[in-house]
Amino acid sequence: MLRNIKIEIEYDGTNFSGWQVQPKLRTVQGEIENKLKRVLGEKIKLVSAGRTDVGAHALGQVANFKTKSFLNLDSIFCGLNSILPEDIVIKNMKEVDFDFNSRYNAISRVYRYRIYLGRTALLRNHVWQLGYDVKISDIVKATEKILGKNDFSSFCVAKSSKKNNFCNVIYASWKKRKEELIFEIKADRFLHSMVRILVGTLMDVGRGYFSLADFEEILKSKDRKKAGKTAPACGLYLVKVNY
Amino acid sequence: MLRNIKIEIEYDGTNFSGWQVQPKLRTVQGEIENKLKRVLGEKIKLVSAGRTDVGAHALGQVANFKTKSFLNLDSIFCGLNSILPEDIVIKNMKEVDFDFNSRYNAISRVYRYRIYLGRTALLRNHVWQLGYDVKISDIVKATEKILGKNDFSSFCVAKSSKKNNFCNVIYASWKKRKEELIFEIKADRFLHSMVRILVGTLMDVGRGYFSLADFEEILKSKDRKKAGKTAPACGLYLVKVNY
Repeated sequence: MLRNIKIEIEYDGTNFSGWQVQPKLRTVQGEIENKLKRVLGEKIKLVSAGRTDVGAHALGQVANFKTKSFLNLDSIFCGLNSILPEDIVIKNMKEVDFDFNSRYNAISRVYRYRIYLGRTALLRNHVWQLGYDVKISDIVKATEKILGKNDFSSFCVAKSSKKNNFCNVIYASWKKRKEELIFEIKADRFLHSMVRILVGTLMDVGRGYFSLADFEEILKSKDRKKAGKTAPACGLYLVKVNY
Repeated sequence: MLRNIKIEIEYDGTNFSGWQVQPKLRTVQGEIENKLKRVLGEKIKLVSAGRTDVGAHALGQVANFKTKSFLNLDSIFCGLNSILPEDIVIKNMKEVDFDFNSRYNAISRVYRYRIYLGRTALLRNHVWQLGYDVKISDIVKATEKILGKNDFSSFCVAKSSKKNNFCNVIYASWKKRKEELIFEIKADRFLHSMVRILVGTLMDVGRGYFSLADFEEILKSKDRKKAGKTAPACGLYLVKVNY
């Protein structure tokens, strides 16, 4: 009988070509599937809550896989963690209903984006080193405009055309901690590159390139070309997936 | 006329063979001296407040160098930062008295040591992933024993024999922040590997391998062999040098 196992994963995306398996590239999914094969003795296919971009990180990515193995969960958990490379850590593992699907059953996701206002050697792969000053109060005001249900077509990679680009933003907030600006956003779903384009555009508001009215106009326009640049992937973290 | 210039440096030690120049190895001193040569057009020799080990980091390393250049300070500062690799950042630069020596004029130094109680992918190069439980109250009690002026021969690489192994510890404290244990220590001087051997031994107290009396005995013995293992370099930060 097949078992269905759910895992929660932390990874440092710096040295990966993103989450999704690609031939000849080092990907997070590829690493975990290879190591699971060694532990379980069978080919394993992971289903994840979402892909992450090249260089983006995760504190709580979720995935699940089916296995015929009878190994107890602790043995799989410890075995897997002990042979995974240092930049991937399985934070927990549990057996779930056979029908559970980490992608389709997710009801909301939380992302974080970290910006560093100065220069930093130690955090260089884990923040966006902004390089210019921003007015945080303006950024906060613009951020309020995205709360609730909106069509986020302006904040989505143009080529990715879904039938429906509506997302319900449950919260979106900014914190300042020393030289860091930290954005956290929770929504029922996210479009391709949505957080990175939002952050890039909000920084343009912060430095006065866009006004608050401009930002509202961009959101309404449903036109990616009107929004700002995509912020670098290295500042982005998939923090949590809720079911 | 020679100018004397003092710089404050942040670096991520992960991909360096330590601070000190060594032939054919990538060192922090070597990188900065090479880039200064390109900016100033002359061979430059850096004097630093102290060497750091392979893999150890700095938030506020201090060094100084003499130059014949008439370039203004801003040009040297920006020029240098723009060609340095991403894992070194010059935080500030100023002209100082000709006699200033960043090593001999230092009156105290602050080091930090970061321990992670769980496993972490994102911080793997920046903390010691301890892997066992510790009793923090015992660690704190033992730490109080090192305050003030003591002979730290037990916490010093055996081969390094100085005439005088007395150090005056001005403060030494522990903080817990989520899954991190953070040690901070200020002293007039530090012996070779002193912070790392102290932390390694204090963790042995924390897990009950040494009692508080054992720890006092180790300190009094002036015998490196009695103390615990040297904690890994990746958790160590040179935070500040005071003049």
